[in-house]
Amino acid sequence: MTRALVLFAHGARAASWAAPFERLRDLTQQRMPDVPVSLAFLELMEPRLPAHVQALAEGGVTGLTIVPVFLGQGGHLLRDLPLMVDQLRADHPHLAIEVAGAVGEDPAVLQAMTDYCVRAFGSAG
Amino acid sequence: MTRALVLFAHGARAASWAAPFERLRDLTQQRMPDVPVSLAFLELMEPRLPAHVQALAEGGVTGLTIVPVFLGQGGHLLRDLPLMVDQLRADHPHLAIEVAGAVGEDPAVLQAMTDYCVRAFGSAG
Repeated sequence: MTRALVLFAHGARAASWAAPFERLRDLTQQRMPDVPVSLAFLELMEPRLPAHVQALAEGGVTGLTIVPVFLGQGGHLLRDLPLMVDQLRADHPHLAIEVAGAVGEDPAVLQAMTDYCVRAFGSAG
Repeated sequence: MTRALVLFAHGARAASWAAPFERLRDLTQQRMPDVPVSLAFLELMEPRLPAHVQALAEGGVTGLTIVPVFLGQGGHLLRDLPLMVDQLRADHPHLAIEVAGAVGEDPAVLQAMTDYCVRAFGSAG
């Protein structure tokens, strides 16, 4: 059984937007060298999640965890992602798909963002 | 001189989306009880940044730091925010406005997100 980790992000027109997501993917990959870690997008950037999961399944992956790299749980996570995951489960019945909570809801991430806000205010003083 | 900290976020249709941003504001406010800490949005949620800055200026604030609570530097931060800030500086020439980098570009935030991704994969196993 090969499990993969997919970081799911929104996507944007500006190519520069992807940079921190690519760093996040690379940092996570370094921490888990034996796990395929990849990025997939909701819109505007490639690969899109459904095509990416299709490729992973064809490549022999039998399970995957999707981590939404979003700050808040808006319509994309409350509605779009569950619909996509339902369709993915229907299309790939032998693929075990888990969906984690949004990165921005994690207390340690919130703490790091708080530290950053405090520092940003202090250094601008 | 009264300086304020404004956390600038995208906004969304789903009210639930704002929750982590409100927690971030509250956590930051706890760390800096003497500084006015507030949230303002680009679109879809109130207050919008220009009206919010206007209100702060009318309330006696003489300087502010804007921290973009965005993961990536896309069109909103590369184009929309600079245009808004240029206009704010023109409208409020006595207000000192600093703009920090995006929260998601901070190495410690990226580290916390990496930790979360690793944990999310492990706990789904």
